[in-house]
Amino acid sequence: MRPESSRPIGVFDSGVGGLTVLKALMERLPNESTVYLGDTARVPYGTKSAEVVRRYSLRNAEFLLARDVKLLVVACNTASSVALPSLAERLGVPVVGVIEPGARAAAASSRSGRIGVIGTPGTIRSGAYRRALEAARPGVEVKAKSCPLFVPLAEEGWTEGEVPTLIARTYLEGLRHDRIDTLVLGCTHYPLLRAVISEAVGGQVALIDSAEATAVAVEEALRAQGLLASEGEATHQLSVTDVPDRFAEVGARFLGRPILHAEQVDMP
Amino acid sequence: MRPESSRPIGVFDSGVGGLTVLKALMERLPNESTVYLGDTARVPYGTKSAEVVRRYSLRNAEFLLARDVKLLVVACNTASSVALPSLAERLGVPVVGVIEPGARAAAASSRSGRIGVIGTPGTIRSGAYRRALEAARPGVEVKAKSCPLFVPLAEEGWTEGEVPTLIARTYLEGLRHDRIDTLVLGCTHYPLLRAVISEAVGGQVALIDSAEATAVAVEEALRAQGLLASEGEATHQLSVTDVPDRFAEVGARFLGRPILHAEQVDMP
Repeated sequence: MRPESSRPIGVFDSGVGGLTVLKALMERLPNESTVYLGDTARVPYGTKSAEVVRRYSLRNAEFLLARDVKLLVVACNTASSVALPSLAERLGVPVVGVIEPGARAAAASSRSGRIGVIGTPGTIRSGAYRRALEAARPGVEVKAKSCPLFVPLAEEGWTEGEVPTLIARTYLEGLRHDRIDTLVLGCTHYPLLRAVISEAVGGQVALIDSAEATAVAVEEALRAQGLLASEGEATHQLSVTDVPDRFAEVGARFLGRPILHAEQVDMP
Repeated sequence: MRPESSRPIGVFDSGVGGLTVLKALMERLPNESTVYLGDTARVPYGTKSAEVVRRYSLRNAEFLLARDVKLLVVACNTASSVALPSLAERLGVPVVGVIEPGARAAAASSRSGRIGVIGTPGTIRSGAYRRALEAARPGVEVKAKSCPLFVPLAEEGWTEGEVPTLIARTYLEGLRHDRIDTLVLGCTHYPLLRAVISEAVGGQVALIDSAEATAVAVEEALRAQGLLASEGEATHQLSVTDVPDRFAEVGARFLGRPILHAEQVDMP
């Protein structure tokens, strides 16, 4: 029987966005094996209701548990913001989302205590970042704005030039005037739009991407439970619920390396 | 027992877009009752694979058949372009899609025989419009272009001003140079962007919206089978697979009237 610690880390997202989190995990924890599930047949989550996102999240978690994961990473801000408590309650493994790590990193980075958050309508509506930021740094002033077109822009690879620049300026004009010094990129798609977001909000604003902070939180959770993998051959499996062609093509931009194989799994 | 002809017409779409078709049906056939299903828990279809869209379409059709519909309208271009043959084979009622009626209307409208088609990636990739146009008018020259951001723009209500104008110009620049005289709006969301599309492609180009042509095709199909409803009280039911709030809000723009009630149905 293989030791507990050699079991893989499970990671799910609505699609390709969570690959930015997977990338950070693979860099920080090179000994860890991973199983990734992208729910590409139902993407996006960010414009759907909390009820539906919770239902999909539970199904994704069950799929990964069946693959014997030792810890679950919810690598989707929308799912983290509405489904994390119910997943943590139901599952027998530790669950790490992207909201708290990102909020803690932003709270630590800000000097003025005026922090902006951008995300999908579902994430912003949930108020999860506001609560996490207020818990991490009482008295913080939070300015939140949903940017629904950023996900399709990133998915289409339309990340620079006139159109994304104009859309970013339109969404972020208000935040620019709010004199924030830190902005949380509260959606795993947004790091691809980093350049236009930075230009729109002002180059002096620090942009916080949850991926790196989440990898740190995963390391802490594994260490706390004595579940860090020892040296050895790490394996990485990618699964999707729609046909994998487009995932492989778009996902390579998110993962920062070519995707040679992704398995299509049957989740009606 | 109620007569066959008093049974409702079933209409499905991935979300709100098909309400433009429902509106045309209600105007042309005021005696007909309708049952509409918007698959808002899985929207959009246009960026998903043919395999997944066929699976969802079959499930939607089965839901509507259980509501005893006498005819099924596939009010979604992506579903019509990839799922119509398999639905027509399996179901025991006539099935009408939006592609053929739109293509016939465009073929009849064009003088030069140079016709443009815009739609989702799924619709354009399928080649269904090209085939339907070539069947309706041999020798026609078809220029096709997918416009993936038009659906989120219409869903967000971002239908005029600088951003949609710039996106439309970027997508449609090529078609402008192709000297088409007719453009098929091959997605039920696109009529909401009619003004910016017309400006981008050139005001002399005739824009063809399939909704009206589809209503005519439904009337013909019902008449051919002796299934036209006689005068009486028509009822209209709206169903969605996600919570109905957003559907009611966004859908009113598509239906051209307030949506007082939409029922949420359980389709996991």
